[in-house]
Amino acid sequence: MAETHSLSNLLEKLVNLPGIGRKSAQRIAFYLLKAPQSESIFLAKAIETARCKTKFCSNCFSFTEDELCSICKDTKRDRGLICVVEQPDDVFAFERIGEYRGVYHVLHGAVSPLDDLGPNKLKIRGLLERLKNNEVKEVILATNPTTEGEATAMYLAKLLKSYEVKVTRIARGVPVGSDLEYADEVTLLRALEGRREI
Amino acid sequence: MAETHSLSNLLEKLVNLPGIGRKSAQRIAFYLLKAPQSESIFLAKAIETARCKTKFCSNCFSFTEDELCSICKDTKRDRGLICVVEQPDDVFAFERIGEYRGVYHVLHGAVSPLDDLGPNKLKIRGLLERLKNNEVKEVILATNPTTEGEATAMYLAKLLKSYEVKVTRIARGVPVGSDLEYADEVTLLRALEGRREI
Repeated sequence: MAETHSLSNLLEKLVNLPGIGRKSAQRIAFYLLKAPQSESIFLAKAIETARCKTKFCSNCFSFTEDELCSICKDTKRDRGLICVVEQPDDVFAFERIGEYRGVYHVLHGAVSPLDDLGPNKLKIRGLLERLKNNEVKEVILATNPTTEGEATAMYLAKLLKSYEVKVTRIARGVPVGSDLEYADEVTLLRALEGRREI
Repeated sequence: MAETHSLSNLLEKLVNLPGIGRKSAQRIAFYLLKAPQSESIFLAKAIETARCKTKFCSNCFSFTEDELCSICKDTKRDRGLICVVEQPDDVFAFERIGEYRGVYHVLHGAVSPLDDLGPNKLKIRGLLERLKNNEVKEVILATNPTTEGEATAMYLAKLLKSYEVKVTRIARGVPVGSDLEYADEVTLLRALEGRREI
């Protein structure tokens, strides 16, 4: 075998990354070995720095390097509107729209009995804390449209009933640009249920 | 924007990797931020170690951590047979077959007039050195079946005429498992030209 020890170690680490198979890992490894030494080391340092500096915002539990994330610190954001998501990744997805002006709350998971992940494992207490000062007018439940995400949304909706706050769920329906022919039954049903007058 | 400084720096480095677009970079970055700190740091260290330890074999110019690569050191390999390839990656591709028992020579590129890459930029002198002791019986030209690879093979074939060595070129033809209908004209022409009696 032509693989050196450090190369097989690198390959082993790279295939653990999401979406990276054996072939992609090899392509990336060879690229890193052939690239100027500084470039490969900058990447290594970037990984280390990002991982060590990043923590969770003490208010919304999204990624931050400080105590509060940039969105929670931003006084121009509407603190009366909280969008509840499963993962920090989802915050970035919503931010990409560029339209949402409220704030977020990251649960860090969804209720999943099969994985023994009950609501007590999620950042729900922090959310309830935020509702206490009566500043919040609406909570948008933006968990994933999966079994776990729906279960989490149902659980939260029930839990938030005792708070004076409007609770909404993002619309489930046919994605824009898709073909109805390929939409599954549940999605189509949701699209019908959620129809609006135009 | 929700991106922290260290995260955008990491994303910027990740999108430079081959086959990694914006979305994949984000997925990998979020994975690294959420993974146990040790896991992300092990990856960073693996990149750094692999890049710093890896050099080119002084004989065949493939990857190695020592003076000679494991193939050049292996006394069971047939030193009379040299497979000439463009990149170290190609050595691994041939090794995956598990059938080739000869050794390699990595050119580190191919003749490419458009990129101002002449034969003097390739590791050809090292190859000629290896032919001097008359131990080599055959040189297999296994450069890519591209314009540059073919030009390099032609150049080397001409150059090696003055040496007492058999020079061969790997077969170009229809790839196994493919559909003739989708083969391009040049490939089909090569497959016809290279036909053999069965």
